[in-house]
Amino acid sequence: MQECRYDEDEIYRRLCKIIAPDRISNNPAELYCSSRDASYIKTAHPPFSVIRPSSSSEVSEILKVAHEMKVPVTPRGAATGLTGGAVPLHGGIVLDMTGMDQVIEIDHENMQVLLEPGVIHAGLNEALFEYGLFFPPDPGSSEMCTIGGMIANDASGMRSVKYGTTSSYVLGLEVVLPTGEIVNTGSRCFKTSSGYDLKRLFVGSEGTLGIVTRARLRLRALPESRYLVLASFETLDGAGSGVVEVLKSGILPSACEILDEVAIAAIGLGEKPLIIFELDGMEDEAEIAALKVIEVCEGLGAECRIVESESEQAEIWDKRRMIGVVITRHKEGSVRVYESEDVILPIKNVVRMLREIERISEKFGIEIITYGHIGDGNLHTAMAIDVQDESEWERLFKMSEEIYTTALKLGGSITGEHGVGVIRASYLKKEHPGSLELMRTIKRAIDPTGIMNPGKMGL
Amino acid sequence: MQECRYDEDEIYRRLCKIIAPDRISNNPAELYCSSRDASYIKTAHPPFSVIRPSSSSEVSEILKVAHEMKVPVTPRGAATGLTGGAVPLHGGIVLDMTGMDQVIEIDHENMQVLLEPGVIHAGLNEALFEYGLFFPPDPGSSEMCTIGGMIANDASGMRSVKYGTTSSYVLGLEVVLPTGEIVNTGSRCFKTSSGYDLKRLFVGSEGTLGIVTRARLRLRALPESRYLVLASFETLDGAGSGVVEVLKSGILPSACEILDEVAIAAIGLGEKPLIIFELDGMEDEAEIAALKVIEVCEGLGAECRIVESESEQAEIWDKRRMIGVVITRHKEGSVRVYESEDVILPIKNVVRMLREIERISEKFGIEIITYGHIGDGNLHTAMAIDVQDESEWERLFKMSEEIYTTALKLGGSITGEHGVGVIRASYLKKEHPGSLELMRTIKRAIDPTGIMNPGKMGL
Repeated sequence: MQECRYDEDEIYRRLCKIIAPDRISNNPAELYCSSRDASYIKTAHPPFSVIRPSSSSEVSEILKVAHEMKVPVTPRGAATGLTGGAVPLHGGIVLDMTGMDQVIEIDHENMQVLLEPGVIHAGLNEALFEYGLFFPPDPGSSEMCTIGGMIANDASGMRSVKYGTTSSYVLGLEVVLPTGEIVNTGSRCFKTSSGYDLKRLFVGSEGTLGIVTRARLRLRALPESRYLVLASFETLDGAGSGVVEVLKSGILPSACEILDEVAIAAIGLGEKPLIIFELDGMEDEAEIAALKVIEVCEGLGAECRIVESESEQAEIWDKRRMIGVVITRHKEGSVRVYESEDVILPIKNVVRMLREIERISEKFGIEIITYGHIGDGNLHTAMAIDVQDESEWERLFKMSEEIYTTALKLGGSITGEHGVGVIRASYLKKEHPGSLELMRTIKRAIDPTGIMNPGKMGL
Repeated sequence: MQECRYDEDEIYRRLCKIIAPDRISNNPAELYCSSRDASYIKTAHPPFSVIRPSSSSEVSEILKVAHEMKVPVTPRGAATGLTGGAVPLHGGIVLDMTGMDQVIEIDHENMQVLLEPGVIHAGLNEALFEYGLFFPPDPGSSEMCTIGGMIANDASGMRSVKYGTTSSYVLGLEVVLPTGEIVNTGSRCFKTSSGYDLKRLFVGSEGTLGIVTRARLRLRALPESRYLVLASFETLDGAGSGVVEVLKSGILPSACEILDEVAIAAIGLGEKPLIIFELDGMEDEAEIAALKVIEVCEGLGAECRIVESESEQAEIWDKRRMIGVVITRHKEGSVRVYESEDVILPIKNVVRMLREIERISEKFGIEIITYGHIGDGNLHTAMAIDVQDESEWERLFKMSEEIYTTALKLGGSITGEHGVGVIRASYLKKEHPGSLELMRTIKRAIDPTGIMNPGKMGL
């Protein structure tokens, strides 16, 4: 991608003819704000324009101009992403999709919803509550993140061990291709064998293949009841083994979170490594499962406590959700840096990975706080450094590399749910040496001029 | 795709250098047998060679020759498909994948299996039984069909209402691309946001993008117990409403099958339209759900019976599986023709579709026997005609067209699980007017010479 081979002013004037004046800007302050996400990635080439489109046809018109003039386009939701995925590396136009935030139709009888990508995750589930339905993927950034961002990264969160990831719920997408063409993919049916599964190609493509302007999502019935079991173990890998044994016994928890000693202390929930199991279903069903979890974990020497009260459950989940933020300031003079913070392992190898993380932390002398969705093997490793000190950055990157390569050696993946973006771009080839070229072939076929979110995913 | 612009004899000689003599043939009888599947589709251009490869590298070598010489390649599993998907429409080479039938590794601790595409579905589940695991998709052709064929069509069957389709279980695929390149897609993890989800592009692509030579499949723990509830309703659409009400009540049956009066009589299970509900899970859980199903259905006037004995359950499922075959000979002098036999609807519209099917049957004077996986909206409509009578064919095609267009009007899809193949090729554009071109773009990018299973899926 070459930068600035076009006349920014001319293009801006053309865009102003398409977009109402209050939804397009070249104000430096706004451009600056639209150049960052929740990662540490900065751009050397700020965008010349940020646009908040209000319809698919506006997005289409914008992309037609961008395609013709070969201008980079970086789509953006709430920018809660941790990988630089929404950072405009090559300047151009930022498309802020948060203005397209309508829930178009709650088709509760068919258990699905049609919406625009700017809808906030928590807001969607609030709107669905009265129908006894919910959209199960449940990221930590629920109160802020958009459904469009979740689709871009195939986000998941705490309930994916039972309910799967965003992609499991995407029935269909309206996508504006880089050429400006609007295509509809998928179906209103819960399954179909009619043609290539195009919607799945766009889910997780991080805005590199087009812009999602509408999504039809499958919903689930809210469970009758939920129980939590808090199981405290003596050691972190003991906690990991507890999870493996529970899953082996045939129980499928609706959430299964691990918190190491530091994480658990930071949110004031105890002192020892903890697993939070959530069991949901019909009343009896959830209770039986909770008692069985306790039986298995106590058999392994854990101390267990059942939480029945809804308000206490909510309190515990609120604390759990805050953990990413709380530990940002855990160490005086240090700031948390999101690097190698989302590896995922086949479930049997999680315990080994937990030991490796301890070893790597000692080797590099940087504390690692571990938490995450251990039920599906997904570990979040938090590390904080003095960000003014270049040598600390160097050490951090070396440590990250060892975390990634160790996860890959153990049959894992470099990212369970946060995506590749800029931060993991150089690791994509390591994980997919044989198929990265095929990803590039598809990218070139759909985005021949390479305008869509260039510089991301190692493409 | 142009036919016969190459020297068949020369290519056959080249292939004989790659493949052991007992696994390549140009014997007319074998070529004839390799030119049909379970549909009525015939080819005007028989293949000149049928090969049973034994390894990925052999498949790769064959495709390199085919790519270079622009020879059509039609992959083939057990050929139980009902759409002509495995019929070599443009001659060339048939790749019979049934020789690659090894279960390579049952990684039971990580709840996954690595296997070759020729493994038979029922055989896989037998091998998994001792580990307390199973591969949930459950097609009617379980005893014959291959996993490769299931992947090609994203097959599902009786348990998809709870467990989803084949694609939900594909963790990774080794695919030989049309150029002969071997690529590995996916991961051993239960989720990943690392790169485009290429495996999902191949699932359901019916051999038009490459040849699957290995698959890694996620498995599930076998449920502790299963109950059946047989619910007889006075009318077919009453049965449909029963299903909608059960699903609305929050119960998620592991199977939910409808059988109309004729279908039920044909297998000797009663006289009135029937829904077979299967409830699975831990012992108490399954029983509670079964009792709740009975409560809902009796409230709608159905007569219900619970089946607890495993042997009686197996007997009922065996009868259910035989239905497709039994009704082939239902009408003296007529043979069942698989046309428009796999539509799927959003669940709320199933009842309306059932009424439409009755109307369409009367309009064209051809009896339609309806059964299928109503829990996810998937209806199999069986019709038999005198296949010697051309006017009956004409009537059948007109009736099929009305079934397809009615399903599409009701928000449905032309195929829930059987695929597109030849039979539904002309309807793909009707269902996907806006995205068929994008499918073609992807097809051209991956298979530039158009050798892979040409003439299928309307591509």
